[in-house]
This record gives sequence, C-alpha cells and structure tokens, in this order.
Amino acid sequence: MQNFFQNIPAALPEELFETLAEGERTQIKRIVSKGHSTAWYDQDQHEFVLVLQGAARLEFEEGRVEEMGPGDWLQIPAHVKHRVTWTLENAETVWLAVHYS
Amino acid sequence: MQNFFQNIPAALPEELFETLAEGERTQIKRIVSKGHSTAWYDQDQHEFVLVLQGAARLEFEEGRVEEMGPGDWLQIPAHVKHRVTWTLENAETVWLAVHYS
Repeated sequence: MQNFFQNIPAALPEELFETLAEGERTQIKRIVSKGHSTAWYDQDQHEFVLVLQGAARLEFEEGRVEEMGPGDWLQIPAHVKHRVTWTLENAETVWLAVHYS
Repeated sequence: MQNFFQNIPAALPEELFETLAEGERTQIKRIVSKGHSTAWYDQDQHEFVLVLQGAARLEFEEGRVEEMGPGDWLQIPAHVKHRVTWTLENAETVWLAVHYS
C-alpha cells in the first residue's frame, strides 16, 4: 500500500509525473505541481483528472476555464485541447490522472 | 466539473457505485461506503483503488490485511480475491476505483 501524499520531493523544478499502474489501454498517474503551468495538450487518449490536494486552473481551447480544488474532477475527451494555466505556488497540488482509450 | 464529496445521499442502505467515466477496457468509479462490508471479489479486471475520505479494512485471500485511510491506494491484480471487512460506521468512506485490463 502507498499513499498519494507521501514521497513528494522537497524541490519540484518540474512537474512530477509517475505512472502508478497501467494496462494495455489505461495509465493511472500521480502528478504533483507547485506553481507550474503547461503548454497545450492535444492527447490521443481520453483523460480523467481529479485534484486531491491544492488548487489549479485548467483552460480549454474553446475558452472554458475551470478552477479546481480538492475533490474536483472532470473528463477530457481525446483531442480536446487544454492546458494548466496556474497551480498553487506555496503548496503542492496533487492530481490523479487516468489516461484511457 | 463535479466534486467527489458532493451528491452523496443522506441514507446509504447499500454501498453506492457510480461509473464516472469509461473506455473500452477502463471503468472509473466512485464508491461510497458507510459501515458496509462485502463478499469476496474475484474479478476479471485489475483494480486500482484509492481512499479519498474515511477509513476501511481490506482483506486478501492469502491473509494480508490493509487498513486504508485518506490518500492510501493499492493495485489488485485480476483474480486476486479480496473483500472489504470494515468501513467507518459514523461517516462516509469515499473511494475511487479504476477497473482495467
């Protein structure tokens, strides 16, 4: 058994991506952000994303913006372009992401 | 956007299972327990399970017992028999489960 909130490096110069479990068409990941933002993603797989701790802002190509906090989740269909425009700077934002097709 | 901790019925005579998102070989579910235990599961798919809130005890056929609390997760390979022997009685235990193959 492992815990989502443990084994987080003290320094996070880049976002931390870890694959926790995977199948042929499923990858389950932990992501840890701290003040990071991202480029636009255009993914071949669908994504389910859940914020476990922290806060983040997600922007979609069509203009929709979602402010996410603990317990918030959404599903992003394949090829729906999106990016993270902001995450908390003074504490870690911990995400669970499932990529699947 | 939805939140994992909202829209929980006041009464839970049985465990609540909801499929939040799914692909051909992936199902992402929310499970809410309150004092429930289960029969043995023998599943054709692998399972990734994470406790978001509450507390639960999971038992495996070979005798291993895991006491799970917030943030704890584990992966259960297909056909590894397991059951939930206890969940908190005075508050909801909220799980995320991903079934995949």
